[in-house]
Amino acid sequence: MLLTNGEIKLLERRYRANLLNSILGYKPANLVGTKSSSGVDNLAIFSSAIHLGADPALVGLLSRPHTVRRHTLENIRSSQSFTINHVSSDFLDKAHRTSAKYPEGLSEFEQTGLSPHFEAGVHAPFVKESEVSLGLTLREIVPLKINGTLLIIGEIEVLLFEEDLVLDDGSLDFELLQTVAVTGLDTYHKASRLKKLPYARP
Amino acid sequence: MLLTNGEIKLLERRYRANLLNSILGYKPANLVGTKSSSGVDNLAIFSSAIHLGADPALVGLLSRPHTVRRHTLENIRSSQSFTINHVSSDFLDKAHRTSAKYPEGLSEFEQTGLSPHFEAGVHAPFVKESEVSLGLTLREIVPLKINGTLLIIGEIEVLLFEEDLVLDDGSLDFELLQTVAVTGLDTYHKASRLKKLPYARP
Repeated sequence: MLLTNGEIKLLERRYRANLLNSILGYKPANLVGTKSSSGVDNLAIFSSAIHLGADPALVGLLSRPHTVRRHTLENIRSSQSFTINHVSSDFLDKAHRTSAKYPEGLSEFEQTGLSPHFEAGVHAPFVKESEVSLGLTLREIVPLKINGTLLIIGEIEVLLFEEDLVLDDGSLDFELLQTVAVTGLDTYHKASRLKKLPYARP
Repeated sequence: MLLTNGEIKLLERRYRANLLNSILGYKPANLVGTKSSSGVDNLAIFSSAIHLGADPALVGLLSRPHTVRRHTLENIRSSQSFTINHVSSDFLDKAHRTSAKYPEGLSEFEQTGLSPHFEAGVHAPFVKESEVSLGLTLREIVPLKINGTLLIIGEIEVLLFEEDLVLDDGSLDFELLQTVAVTGLDTYHKASRLKKLPYARP
């Protein structure tokens, strides 16, 4: 079937959100950890983390100004610090529950049973249960005029993972990791490797 | 293990690229179709497509100014049009081979054996073999000052997919799709659904 721009606009709001959030394929499932100015540890699930560059080591994260994820944005602004932590299949339900709207002042760590962990030089909390974590310092927030979305850009301060999870070429070994992928807003997947392909030449 | 920012900078260039390109988890594997001003159909594999918003329906794509992907960027600039097409397991090798540097004037469609397909209202070629395709019009290119990366923003003009691939709530059914995920620069995965979770409440 073919859906035009005009037909997409006429779709029921939630149906359209589900369709467009799933239309590009698999996305990374990550927990973003932050600490508020009053000291509350915040945790929120994101599927919008994106690699921006290797030198300097930069990561982007998309946020909207007025959604459930506003705490994350406010905390990153006030503290200049955030963490990104892989979601594993064994704590998937807890990770998904961080998206609930808890009363002000409650920490998603306590509410979901996940454990905060701290490292020197990073103000924000890591997720102890995660197999791979990044600690980042805010470098810039780029507002996208077109729809008010914000691209949060962080530089990696520290990476945390077990040494045996890295292959000889530097890639993480996803055959060993329990990391999940997400599609749309609510569907989680386990992946299995099909192929590692050589550098392509004509 | 813990790697600091300073230690990351000291990693061998390719090792660092592999590590940082895989550090956030699973990414979507898509083919981006464009047409040059001299009429050559171009096709390039990208793992940086990202959902930017549902109304208007916006998609982002990251590009660097001086890499193998420059043709895609130039063609989007000159024609204002591009397509994004899911990579399926059955044409994965062909899709990966679009990343080779072919001599000027050759089309990756012909070089890899993938088939261009056209739809009214979209100048750029679609990939006939893809189960899900988006046709987009360029809305804006946002340069990220911090490292020269460019965020290409397109608005969806048309969506192409079989009707039975959509669930009642509007999400694509990835249990039926052969769409693959990618990690790092060269590793492709098939995914299987773990869970579709309900909207989270405290």
